[in-house]
Amino acid sequence: MNRYSQFSDALFTDLYELTMAQAYWRAGVTDQATFSLFFRGYPRNRSYYVFAGLEAILNHLEDFQFTGADIDYLRTLDRFDEEFIEYLAELRFTGDVRSMKEGTVCFGDEPVLEVRGPIIEAQIAETFLLNQATFQSTVATKASRVVHAAAGRSVVDFAARRTQGTDAAMKVARTGYLAGYHATSNVKAGAVYGIPVVGTMAHSFIMAFDSEIEAFRAYTHAFPDYATLLVDTYDTLRGVRNAIEVGRELESEGHVLRGVRIDSGDLAHLGREARKILDEEGFKDVGVFASGGLDEYEVDRLVRDGTPFEGYGVGTKAGTSADAPYLDSAYKLVEYAGRPVLKLSSKKQSLPGCKQVYRTYTSDGSYDRDTISLVSEEAPSMSAKPLLENVMTEGARINGSPALNDLRDEHAREFTRVPARYKALQSAPRYPVEVSQRLKELQREVVREVRDRELGE
Amino acid sequence: MNRYSQFSDALFTDLYELTMAQAYWRAGVTDQATFSLFFRGYPRNRSYYVFAGLEAILNHLEDFQFTGADIDYLRTLDRFDEEFIEYLAELRFTGDVRSMKEGTVCFGDEPVLEVRGPIIEAQIAETFLLNQATFQSTVATKASRVVHAAAGRSVVDFAARRTQGTDAAMKVARTGYLAGYHATSNVKAGAVYGIPVVGTMAHSFIMAFDSEIEAFRAYTHAFPDYATLLVDTYDTLRGVRNAIEVGRELESEGHVLRGVRIDSGDLAHLGREARKILDEEGFKDVGVFASGGLDEYEVDRLVRDGTPFEGYGVGTKAGTSADAPYLDSAYKLVEYAGRPVLKLSSKKQSLPGCKQVYRTYTSDGSYDRDTISLVSEEAPSMSAKPLLENVMTEGARINGSPALNDLRDEHAREFTRVPARYKALQSAPRYPVEVSQRLKELQREVVREVRDRELGE
Repeated sequence: MNRYSQFSDALFTDLYELTMAQAYWRAGVTDQATFSLFFRGYPRNRSYYVFAGLEAILNHLEDFQFTGADIDYLRTLDRFDEEFIEYLAELRFTGDVRSMKEGTVCFGDEPVLEVRGPIIEAQIAETFLLNQATFQSTVATKASRVVHAAAGRSVVDFAARRTQGTDAAMKVARTGYLAGYHATSNVKAGAVYGIPVVGTMAHSFIMAFDSEIEAFRAYTHAFPDYATLLVDTYDTLRGVRNAIEVGRELESEGHVLRGVRIDSGDLAHLGREARKILDEEGFKDVGVFASGGLDEYEVDRLVRDGTPFEGYGVGTKAGTSADAPYLDSAYKLVEYAGRPVLKLSSKKQSLPGCKQVYRTYTSDGSYDRDTISLVSEEAPSMSAKPLLENVMTEGARINGSPALNDLRDEHAREFTRVPARYKALQSAPRYPVEVSQRLKELQREVVREVRDRELGE
Repeated sequence: MNRYSQFSDALFTDLYELTMAQAYWRAGVTDQATFSLFFRGYPRNRSYYVFAGLEAILNHLEDFQFTGADIDYLRTLDRFDEEFIEYLAELRFTGDVRSMKEGTVCFGDEPVLEVRGPIIEAQIAETFLLNQATFQSTVATKASRVVHAAAGRSVVDFAARRTQGTDAAMKVARTGYLAGYHATSNVKAGAVYGIPVVGTMAHSFIMAFDSEIEAFRAYTHAFPDYATLLVDTYDTLRGVRNAIEVGRELESEGHVLRGVRIDSGDLAHLGREARKILDEEGFKDVGVFASGGLDEYEVDRLVRDGTPFEGYGVGTKAGTSADAPYLDSAYKLVEYAGRPVLKLSSKKQSLPGCKQVYRTYTSDGSYDRDTISLVSEEAPSMSAKPLLENVMTEGARINGSPALNDLRDEHAREFTRVPARYKALQSAPRYPVEVSQRLKELQREVVREVRDRELGE
């Protein structure tokens, strides 16, 4: 099935991770390092993030091992010493990971995950870790916005056909469910993650029959209890009337029609008309579902207009996070051999040292503010909650994999604690994220030390 | 390594493909169908496409087979008849595929691929085929624009860390190379596709040493013949001077410094200053390379300004096609059991029937116009070239897999035949794509027939 399965994801790394590794190795620079993963600021129209990707990251680190094919390929590059290649063949990840839980609502510049381990191991992991944390958090955040816009109506993932590749489709289904989607159309995601799957018919099904009503009959004959009929292949409201006719036939056989779906045209107008016709004909329990080019902005508009859709299928725009298809993520070395370090020449200096993020709450349990602190500091208050937890020690998971349903429930509970103003789809204010005094002082010290050394100031 | 490898990509399909399949099967609707894959119109700032994804599609169709785990999972859904499930367990793809070559420069609304086979087989394939053709063509097109903007300077793919998942990273590397990139940083893509890999160091490497120059020395010690030094960790122009010092040390040992890379700041200014310093110090052969947030617009600006960069590393924006992260693709049923069909209710009716795309050329060999015809029609002129070729018959590839390097060479040759006006990064005119008279007539006939039948007109 997988034509390149002889190569492992240990090779899923930038070449420079491996060349740096050889240079570290030859120079004896093999001490403990800490890398901090975070998202810089926010893209337009984002005011919070839903962190995701940890499960894939921990799987990767636990399984990390170059295969024979990987090693043979590295030899062909003619860049690496044979002794170093033999070292790579034995390499495993033996470090520690502290991370936020998947589904955590978090904010710009906060470390979401820190890796501490021998520098070569932590360095080689960079590419895969950034890839998964960045992408999965991108689409989890997008999904959270869609769920918020749907205001309690069901949302279903239809994106598999137009995501950026197959891994994306799997993670879009998974993170959508984590963020509150009801189900996915992606059967493999259903199998792998245990997510509910849904789906009934496409336009091609209608067109393959001699007429729309014959297609509806054939479908309800095969699935008398699961039919949501797609009514917009030829003329949407005539399609609704055909669906009603077939609905009556179903009733006479002791079944019920589930719903109708509208996938094109003026959704607000057609949705209202479809609802009216169904109600008039006594099909008040038959839902009207919308799909076709939807995202949080369009769902929000439909919901605010009071359009009577029971649920929304969201595809391409949600599955690619089309208005913000990436996050400006970083995996920064913050400490090496006990020495805090930073990068200087960008507009903003990075924050050195191993960190913790503390969340404080208002008296009613709402999020009040977060504080980025050094891990060695005390919490800013008794009630502040540390968000980074130990999840891996010496290369082994600490608590197994949490169930996706548990993470989903916890996310839903946490999301209600985010004050409404930060959830606005556009022009939301910035949630306050503070840097602790000690961390600011450390940053100043390290900046001064680096300037002295490198700039001769 | 792959924790879900017990499930195959046969399951990578929307649930409705399988429910439709059961309904087709029970209704005896199992005749030959033709589906046509195309991209509707263009996103903003796109005026041509580079078709890609065929290799993954043909692999998928050749390998198509539900595993035991797939079948067991489908049983748990409690939706499908046992007899149908047993039918699925035996299902293979036995149809035909006609397609453009990967790397073909093509245009909106042209069929790029047509699948003909028993309707159930061709229908279930929809999700995977759309996913790969859409995504790979999205990023191949983006890469082609970057290569065009670079105007002969080398371009390297650095996207792996921020693509939308791992499959995306692999295909971004592959299609980038197809479209003319020089290399990728993604080691696994190098291994799987035989693409050249490049890379030297990250900021973390510099920060792990006690000073920048020590880091440079450690690196050149490990790779005396492959060093491109990253100079912007602390102060870019001081970094260039440190690189020169290490370059002299290399020379004294019989090696040469390859280049310096600038990843942040005012690239145009820093690139010019770096070049000037290197030239003054006698390092005219040391290249200056740029990276950091680049896309075709920024590369174009740098090239037009005459900034002396030898090459560009492009990452996130190219690897996610950030300004147009998806194409509006469709996989439309165009013929069933010999009967041409179409969808009516969208703004624009689809084109019925099995098709061919013909390209005609001006006397100097440039692209003049394309014509979408019925496959049964003659070419519009003697010299017109049909773009869809038979690539799979009865489920088997016809000519093996073409070498990626051959496709890359052919793409490069073809791209020179596209008139310059159509390659403009913005505001390019529309390349003329005509619909043949006979196809227009057929569309009118089928529309009339459907209106008669469905709308009672």
